[in-house]
Amino acid sequence: MVNVAILGFGTVGSGVAEVLTTNGGLIDQRVADLVRLKYILDVRDFPDSPYKDCFVKDFSIIENDPQVDIVVETIGGATVALDFTTRALKAGKSVVSSNKELVATHGYDLLQLARANGVNYLFEASVGGGIPILRPLISCLAANELSQVTGILNGTTNYILTRMIKAGLTFDQALKEAQANGYAERDPSADVDGHDACRKICILAALSFGQHVYPDQVPTQGIRDITLADVAYADSCGYKIKLLGRCLRQPEGKVCAFVAPHLVPGDNPLSDVEDVFNAIAVTGNAIGDVMFYGRGAGKLPTASAVVADIIDIAKDLKKDRRNQWGPGSPDLVVSSDILSSRWYVRVNASLADARALFSDLQPLARGGAPAGEIAFLTREMHEPEVRQRLAGLDVQSLLRVL
Amino acid sequence: MVNVAILGFGTVGSGVAEVLTTNGGLIDQRVADLVRLKYILDVRDFPDSPYKDCFVKDFSIIENDPQVDIVVETIGGATVALDFTTRALKAGKSVVSSNKELVATHGYDLLQLARANGVNYLFEASVGGGIPILRPLISCLAANELSQVTGILNGTTNYILTRMIKAGLTFDQALKEAQANGYAERDPSADVDGHDACRKICILAALSFGQHVYPDQVPTQGIRDITLADVAYADSCGYKIKLLGRCLRQPEGKVCAFVAPHLVPGDNPLSDVEDVFNAIAVTGNAIGDVMFYGRGAGKLPTASAVVADIIDIAKDLKKDRRNQWGPGSPDLVVSSDILSSRWYVRVNASLADARALFSDLQPLARGGAPAGEIAFLTREMHEPEVRQRLAGLDVQSLLRVL
Repeated sequence: MVNVAILGFGTVGSGVAEVLTTNGGLIDQRVADLVRLKYILDVRDFPDSPYKDCFVKDFSIIENDPQVDIVVETIGGATVALDFTTRALKAGKSVVSSNKELVATHGYDLLQLARANGVNYLFEASVGGGIPILRPLISCLAANELSQVTGILNGTTNYILTRMIKAGLTFDQALKEAQANGYAERDPSADVDGHDACRKICILAALSFGQHVYPDQVPTQGIRDITLADVAYADSCGYKIKLLGRCLRQPEGKVCAFVAPHLVPGDNPLSDVEDVFNAIAVTGNAIGDVMFYGRGAGKLPTASAVVADIIDIAKDLKKDRRNQWGPGSPDLVVSSDILSSRWYVRVNASLADARALFSDLQPLARGGAPAGEIAFLTREMHEPEVRQRLAGLDVQSLLRVL
Repeated sequence: MVNVAILGFGTVGSGVAEVLTTNGGLIDQRVADLVRLKYILDVRDFPDSPYKDCFVKDFSIIENDPQVDIVVETIGGATVALDFTTRALKAGKSVVSSNKELVATHGYDLLQLARANGVNYLFEASVGGGIPILRPLISCLAANELSQVTGILNGTTNYILTRMIKAGLTFDQALKEAQANGYAERDPSADVDGHDACRKICILAALSFGQHVYPDQVPTQGIRDITLADVAYADSCGYKIKLLGRCLRQPEGKVCAFVAPHLVPGDNPLSDVEDVFNAIAVTGNAIGDVMFYGRGAGKLPTASAVVADIIDIAKDLKKDRRNQWGPGSPDLVVSSDILSSRWYVRVNASLADARALFSDLQPLARGGAPAGEIAFLTREMHEPEVRQRLAGLDVQSLLRVL
């Protein structure tokens, strides 16, 4: 018998309980043992829950119960969750987490602690919700030296951008709709300002390149400033605006990582990822490009990833999953300034003025553009160069082209 | 030290040798042991190969060398490959294969034989080339009861269809171009008649639903009869024609599996899979829909998948990977007649005649249609019903809508 304790009975935690129950028969069969939910930790009371006999309010009951093999942390944040995760690992219990903030900020330490205690710390659900991505990175692509990862990592912002592109809603209108549909929090900052995508690209970078990348090392730009004018200009040349998290292997063990809205060409499969879906494209030196696509959030998809980790651990409690990475360092991450690309520019100027600065620009047009507004694509150049040329102009938008 | 022998030094076999060499450092690191290529079996001579010291012509050298841990079978077919795979497993060596024909026709027996000998038989490269799909099905989606798998499983036919759609080439022209580019064999039957996709959907069905599905149980229709008229009508209503392998869980442990060209709606991510790329969409009861996308063939992508299997085995030579499935049975597979869908019909008739048969049809139009040709989409119905209604008419095309 393998006993599981769930910390936090919110959306993901209750989903994990549901999947463990609904699919209990096939889970037991796959593990070749009985996987049982023993405790659910939550400060609230759930007198009508089918799991009502499992609820406890004191973590030490779980911590001190030697029968508990696997602790599922779906609390979120990096305070209580850090405390409980640390104590669970020290108590010799493997921990499965959906908490990207905790992994992105303390992943290295917690992985070290897990190894020191002969247990595992797995967090497939922390990136891409239900999409299998971390385990494929570690195992299926193990024959590759990975060179880059590019992801639509946040369903809320992708929903908002999709509604702007397809329904012509403004950012504010699309955000309100996302909130009404339960896709965005009342305080949407973590999503729309790119912090959620930032945490996820940190985890992907660490697994891909082997060293911890901290969120505060990763320049992060959200989508608040994207307008319908930008959407229209992008559409005019066959591009879609997407918020991308990107990480690229650099010489001498360095990593380039950042989060920013991009113009994505229509023939890139990432351009077709719509609504709350996520997709992660990975490039390796043998496989070339491969992409993983699915629901990046939601109760049951995320629970699917959590329970896959539970099954993996339950099959062999003491096996080292080797999902370790090395420590970070202050100079690990290099600026995206080193990354040359085309740029989309929207500026209040004349085309003649723009051509004086960018002789080989590709002008863009949209219906209803106000007098004096122009937009164009540059040739490939680095960000400092494009900014230097634009200095003194009234720049409305500057977005990288993927 | 883990010693590897490669059987067959063709495209995939030479790719495996190349990946083992090029990425040797990281492979050793991931395995925490030295993985070394000891033998390459091929009837031909390769005096200038960097691996020239590895070549042998007699399989019994490999079979009888107790130092060989893993045999890589990239011979193809189900004759010599079956003999060598059987003997390798009996000799206590794990076997890694890219051979879909062998797995689809003898997978159950070979998996049983592997288990009986305490070794493994892995074949990630047999489906989707480099795309990680079999291991994610087994491990990452282990918490799900899977309900269906839908795949663009053959790069050659997808290339031909893409060239018909995008460049307006006829099937024959696109096939010739594919042959000129090395994407199609001189005898293209295995690809264009759907047999390759059939073998792959058999493997996906067996892993998803737990029982061996044999290729001769799976109705298979290729793309030879697809015309530019069909492509144009599909385009007129926002669909693309794709060759799909499909398998669906049915009541009472039955499986519905078939291969046929379909009209795929433009908002389905499978519709955007172009050229030689493959994609496999999987539906599970927790995860919902998830899709895996990448290069379905090619030397290094396929080698990437083979070497991932080698790494997996080399990490723990005796661990049971539990990728078993049960035996097949003559009545396992049910006809796709049970599957209701909309249908695309192209027929030489008048619209009035067609409306008399399908009162709620959706007519389609294309430029340059000859007099007397009409095309339309039906409402959802089963295949026997649509065929019965069309009886007596001069039907040019009948394709299922996804």
